Amino acid sequence: MEEEYPVGTVKTKEENERNVGQSLTNQNEDQMTPPQVLSYLCRHLYSLGWMPGSGGAISTREGDTLYVTPSGVQKERVKASDVFELRADGTVLSGPSNLRPSQCLPLFQLIYEVHGPGTIIHSHSMAVVMATILYPGHWLRISHLHMIKGVPRQDTGGRRRWDEELCIPVIENEAEDKNLAGRLRVALCAQPDCPAVLIRRHGAYIWGESWDKAKTTAESIDYLCDIAVRMKQSGLSSEVPPSGEKGFE
Amino acid sequence: MEEEYPVGTVKTKEENERNVGQSLTNQNEDQMTPPQVLSYLCRHLYSLGWMPGSGGAISTREGDTLYVTPSGVQKERVKASDVFELRADGTVLSGPSNLRPSQCLPLFQLIYEVHGPGTIIHSHSMAVVMATILYPGHWLRISHLHMIKGVPRQDTGGRRRWDEELCIPVIENEAEDKNLAGRLRVALCAQPDCPAVLIRRHGAYIWGESWDKAKTTAESIDYLCDIAVRMKQSGLSSEVPPSGEKGFE
Amino acid sequence: MEEEYPVGTVKTKEENERNVGQSLTNQNEDQMTPPQVLSYLCRHLYSLGWMPGSGGAISTREGDTLYVTPSGVQKERVKASDVFELRADGTVLSGPSNLRPSQCLPLFQLIYEVHGPGTIIHSHSMAVVMATILYPGHWLRISHLHMIKGVPRQDTGGRRRWDEELCIPVIENEAEDKNLAGRLRVALCAQPDCPAVLIRRHGAYIWGESWDKAKTTAESIDYLCDIAVRMKQSGLSSEVPPSGEKGFE
Amino acid sequence: MEEEYPVGTVKTKEENERNVGQSLTNQNEDQMTPPQVLSYLCRHLYSLGWMPGSGGAISTREGDTLYVTPSGVQKERVKASDVFELRADGTVLSGPSNLRPSQCLPLFQLIYEVHGPGTIIHSHSMAVVMATILYPGHWLRISHLHMIKGVPRQDTGGRRRWDEELCIPVIENEAEDKNLAGRLRVALCAQPDCPAVLIRRHGAYIWGESWDKAKTTAESIDYLCDIAVRMKQSGLSSEVPPSGEKGFE
Repeated sequence: MEEEYPVGTVKTKEENERNVGQSLTNQNEDQMTPPQVLSYLCRHLYSLGWMPGSGGAISTREGDTLYVTPSGVQKERVKASDVFELRADGTVLSGPSNLRPSQCLPLFQLIYEVHGPGTIIHSHSMAVVMATILYPGHWLRISHLHMIKGVPRQDTGGRRRWDEELCIPVIENEAEDKNLAGRLRVALCAQPDCPAVLIRRHGAYIWGESWDKAKTTAESIDYLCDIAVRMKQSGLSSEVPPSGEKGFE
Repeated sequence: MEEEYPVGTVKTKEENERNVGQSLTNQNEDQMTPPQVLSYLCRHLYSLGWMPGSGGAISTREGDTLYVTPSGVQKERVKASDVFELRADGTVLSGPSNLRPSQCLPLFQLIYEVHGPGTIIHSHSMAVVMATILYPGHWLRISHLHMIKGVPRQDTGGRRRWDEELCIPVIENEAEDKNLAGRLRVALCAQPDCPAVLIRRHGAYIWGESWDKAKTTAESIDYLCDIAVRMKQSGLSSEVPPSGEKGFE
Repeated sequence: MEEEYPVGTVKTKEENERNVGQSLTNQNEDQMTPPQVLSYLCRHLYSLGWMPGSGGAISTREGDTLYVTPSGVQKERVKASDVFELRADGTVLSGPSNLRPSQCLPLFQLIYEVHGPGTIIHSHSMAVVMATILYPGHWLRISHLHMIKGVPRQDTGGRRRWDEELCIPVIENEAEDKNLAGRLRVALCAQPDCPAVLIRRHGAYIWGESWDKAKTTAESIDYLCDIAVRMKQSGLSSEVPPSGEKGFE
Repeated sequence: MEEEYPVGTVKTKEENERNVGQSLTNQNEDQMTPPQVLSYLCRHLYSLGWMPGSGGAISTREGDTLYVTPSGVQKERVKASDVFELRADGTVLSGPSNLRPSQCLPLFQLIYEVHGPGTIIHSHSMAVVMATILYPGHWLRISHLHMIKGVPRQDTGGRRRWDEELCIPVIENEAEDKNLAGRLRVALCAQPDCPAVLIRRHGAYIWGESWDKAKTTAESIDYLCDIAVRMKQSGLSSEVPPSGEKGFE
């Protein structure tokens, strides 16, 4: 993992807003509009297996305007014109007349309110779901994996050490996504430095200050969940610091 | 999973027919013809690993006209002009002279007759086959997984709860596909709300009211089979409700 | 699996030769030349994971002219102009001056001599290699899997039953590919109806009368090896007929 | 595996330099510039799962000029214009003003200094990481796998036997990549014939005389790590020579 988060800088809400919709790299010289970003991400994340069926959802925002993927459609075929544009309060500004915004909208709004990210990804990744099944407690605890450095401190933007313990909150699932709001809020407050919450037997919400940060953070967390699952399947645990490992030092 | 099935609406056969070949979303503004849909799905489902060798088949219909993929060819290379057009009774209306319609045709006809879907997918997915091997009974029972909501009630169009038990019938395999008709009929009647039947050590038939619904339902069931397999490989079972799981509530 | 092999027809060597380079389907209306076929297959089989590093090789023939992929290059980047054209005795007719034909050439020649296929695939698939490690005997025995029907009887072209036992010979590896010829010949004769030989801790040779038959047969065998490995990892064996499986009958 | 390394030829540093940036095959008739090579490799290796998040890095050189991928960006979107050009001492000659060269630069420089390869790949492959977790010692030892022949002797360019023991050094991880230099140097000297060093719970550095050699060597080592992991998960070990395997001989 490579990091570009300066240690200890606290990002203000205003700074977060300036970053929204922008990439810090040259990768976006051909700047995409927010609906184009969501269409691109839907195709990409479907190819990673995070959005099977019509599952999963993505939201990005630009100032007070939210963009949300539609409900109940094949995510690899979402076009920019299928994306909803909404006010922060959820009023639809524009969008396809025969579709509805994702049912994740209230949860996206809650995460925007509490943490102010630029982009939020709701994944149904199998690695995440298996991790919540094999690690049954309040937290998925992972330490001593280099990819931990790929998960920024959500509250300060600061960097993590590879050998610190990353605690990702896990909430129990509910019949309706909107009913998850209460316990999502508890989890967001319980671990304010973690830019992700897992939902048992369901998936994950993962976010970042811009769409590419949200995506790379989500890939890092997915990778860590996958390793945690593989370790458990080999009789090990991501929660137990390594012992007996002895290479060149 | 996101749902767009209103609770408890019973779809009439006429409504089913109106839906056939249509997508409920903007994704098909560039409307594909039924043969183009089958060609597209063959490529896509091959890439998911559901149609290795020359295995698997797909059928869609428009009113009384059936469309079926050809037998014994590489599915990722099926062109629209390779697709057969048939009457409901199986009479070939058009199709390539050097090929034959899929041997699954009698089973497709049976499912059309009993349940009236718009599109049927016959998958050889390894997740499905392993699930039928590791769960040896009459049913694959799965509960407490959010993706269950991605499987509509086939008889009413109603929605499932994430924590209800999804029962997918499993039938034993036969030497010839056509000889599966008898037990397929039994299974279809035994579990009329399930839009899928698994064939032990062989694959699955999965369907939906339109091609995109059939595909998203098939992806949801495949995902659930995969989780069921992974749980069994970790000493757990998809059939046993969770206990001891305790996250934020 | 769908079959198009009529039961019990014995294909003469002349019939085999007529089939070489031809596809039985419309898929090849845009007929590829043999070098184009090998370039296409290299890209495709690399994407399946069968040709990592510079491993694996493919050969096809048209009458007495052989076509072979080059040695030691990235298979996903093999162009038609990188393919060697040779006489049946191995004399190079044309090919890139800075490359050499695959070291598999003597084994390809041997298989052509004994069984007369149109196309031969040498795969380094991990499923195949793991199967030869987890099943340590002279044969990989697989029964009661529908995909067995995807493996034609190489000597008669006849069809297999899904519940018969497919016996794939396994030979021990050698330092040089050419030194495998002796035991490959023994294996070819020991199981003349099987269009494949596995090499322990190395890979497989799989063939068919035309390039698309070779590919679909290879995909079927790879799938079966993968299931055999997964069964073993779950404490089961592909060699033991199922017992206790009881679905709708 | 196919080999094209003549046995026992020792390559001088001058020969290594002539090879840099060149491919030995026709695959590069359309010669790519070094930045184009890095952009191509980033996309390709991301698709193999070696560069999730913004992890991983690649460097190539032409004489005394180094090319390095940027830090902290989505690797599948790295363009040729995102690549840094540097002097051997690390002075930036050109590159995007809003990015920084990979933090792996000091380790790339060290490997160039000690072994003089043309291209170095830093992978975060999950197979590599799991191998370092399941094999906790100073070395990952692998023998009796054909793909071993895909790993050239880095000091002589000579060929390996498939049944010899490949010893890949494993070093313990550090908080900062640059702090790995000391133990990386120890490992490079401890096993001078191996073109790879693994970093526990982190990833691998793998190299070759040209970009395509580095890539095929990296794919071979990744494949071997994956087999080693699968063997361990089946109660076997890549470190123990096979016994009881008995096929046709």
